[in-house]
Amino acid sequence: MVACSGGPDSLALAAATTHVARHREVPVRGVVVDHGLQAGSDRVASEAAAQLTELGCSEVEVARVHPDGAGGTEAAARRARYEALRARRPPGSPVLLGHTLDDQAETVLLGLGRGSGARSLAGMRPLDGPWARPFLEITRGTTEQACAELGLRPWRDPHNADPGFTRIRLRTEVLPLLEEVLQGGVANALSRTAVQLREDADALDAVAADLRERVADSGGLDARSLAAHPPALRRRVLRDWLTDQGVPELSDAHLRASDALVGDWRGQGGHALPGNFELVRIRGTLLVECGGRGTDQRSSDG
Amino acid sequence: MVACSGGPDSLALAAATTHVARHREVPVRGVVVDHGLQAGSDRVASEAAAQLTELGCSEVEVARVHPDGAGGTEAAARRARYEALRARRPPGSPVLLGHTLDDQAETVLLGLGRGSGARSLAGMRPLDGPWARPFLEITRGTTEQACAELGLRPWRDPHNADPGFTRIRLRTEVLPLLEEVLQGGVANALSRTAVQLREDADALDAVAADLRERVADSGGLDARSLAAHPPALRRRVLRDWLTDQGVPELSDAHLRASDALVGDWRGQGGHALPGNFELVRIRGTLLVECGGRGTDQRSSDG
Repeated sequence: MVACSGGPDSLALAAATTHVARHREVPVRGVVVDHGLQAGSDRVASEAAAQLTELGCSEVEVARVHPDGAGGTEAAARRARYEALRARRPPGSPVLLGHTLDDQAETVLLGLGRGSGARSLAGMRPLDGPWARPFLEITRGTTEQACAELGLRPWRDPHNADPGFTRIRLRTEVLPLLEEVLQGGVANALSRTAVQLREDADALDAVAADLRERVADSGGLDARSLAAHPPALRRRVLRDWLTDQGVPELSDAHLRASDALVGDWRGQGGHALPGNFELVRIRGTLLVECGGRGTDQRSSDG
Repeated sequence: MVACSGGPDSLALAAATTHVARHREVPVRGVVVDHGLQAGSDRVASEAAAQLTELGCSEVEVARVHPDGAGGTEAAARRARYEALRARRPPGSPVLLGHTLDDQAETVLLGLGRGSGARSLAGMRPLDGPWARPFLEITRGTTEQACAELGLRPWRDPHNADPGFTRIRLRTEVLPLLEEVLQGGVANALSRTAVQLREDADALDAVAADLRERVADSGGLDARSLAAHPPALRRRVLRDWLTDQGVPELSDAHLRASDALVGDWRGQGGHALPGNFELVRIRGTLLVECGGRGTDQRSSDG
């Protein structure tokens, strides 16, 4: 199954997909999502659907969605789109999405503004079942060129020139300036960085999961063993363990304060956590207590 | 010892340093580096030196340097500056540098353009003996304000308005635009990201060093044991081990190709490395051979 907006990225993706599928004799379902957010969106969707049929999709469907809910238009449209695609997926099939290297670069820059470490800079995954992004290392320019060479008629989304969207301003203002100032290669560099940071984060998560098995049991977390490991690993172990204990909304600041009970132990009191929890250290073991009793209660380390 | 250019950052740092030092009764050596790159740089340096004396530095010295060598003016000035500072350091003393949170944000953005993963985004370290950067979480605006309140006379480097310098364009064009588009907090986010990525990279290096001890011996690297670990760890083990075997200039692409002999083993031939080396896999063990014989020699894995 291939998702197509009618834009050059996903139209080129549909062309590549049907080409490969023809050689392998695999059927391709093409799905166009009509968000109904612009006048004439139904015509855009049927024009895209017609091209999917011309390209050789064995089934073509236009899915009309009604985005609403929290978080603004962009977020609501995105939620509705992914939901509609998921519902139309043939069992076992991946859903191919047309995200390009340029989309990845924009995603990394957006993540940079949130500043919560490697995961926020790790961008989109090429494979994130059921989603697959085969064009994640292909530039938008290449998809435009492919459409021109194949005689396709891509749709130009007027939203792509609307400076009201953060992503559009990153695309049309920030990235071109960065490319100029840093003398080119920025989109590529951001995309490579995303790959490396994602792999780093995966490795750290794997090592932290191993470590957690060695330091956690039903009685709590062994702070003395944990203390021998690097802070970035300790905080990951704490994050996963605290989350499993039911502590909600853990920020980096909470994890650093919690880790002080491991890496900077001076017999101090417990640390208050969201959800009225408290993390305390008792005889070398970390425990989560309900209904935190404030910092007047000192934990003791025998 | 505190290094001072006469600019607001390092002048505010000198004021803070002498304040603390006075209370602790510790002597402070102030050093001003005159790069001799602008007309009147000697007057700028002596004005800075005069203020260091007024602030209460116990010794003040102007170090005149002559930047030259490869890599452009900025790089040559930087090399000469650090060398002059190192030579004037009282034994055992740190050298305090006035880098701010804004400098850190610029450094992270510069690293982003190079795109070689976590280390290139990790920015400057707050402590990197003998260098110490106590203002790394303080904004440039705060140092300006401190100078104004203390009646100091900071020098305005005309280079700071020269769009010929990449860093200056990041400061005056890219970062303000990013702040606007992402609605503020970008310099802070870049600085927090730098801290987290540095800690992540330190943790991965530590775990990889442990792992290397378990999989490497004088006979080579045990590819079968290594294969059980995440790619980001395997590449770090390979990087350090190959570097110790004398292989120069290892790129990320080389490490990924080398890692294919571990993580994607199909009985393939060796991989040619820079410096006329070749990495081969023989009976489950990785070995570096001199004078690579190309890919016609197949390694065998019994």
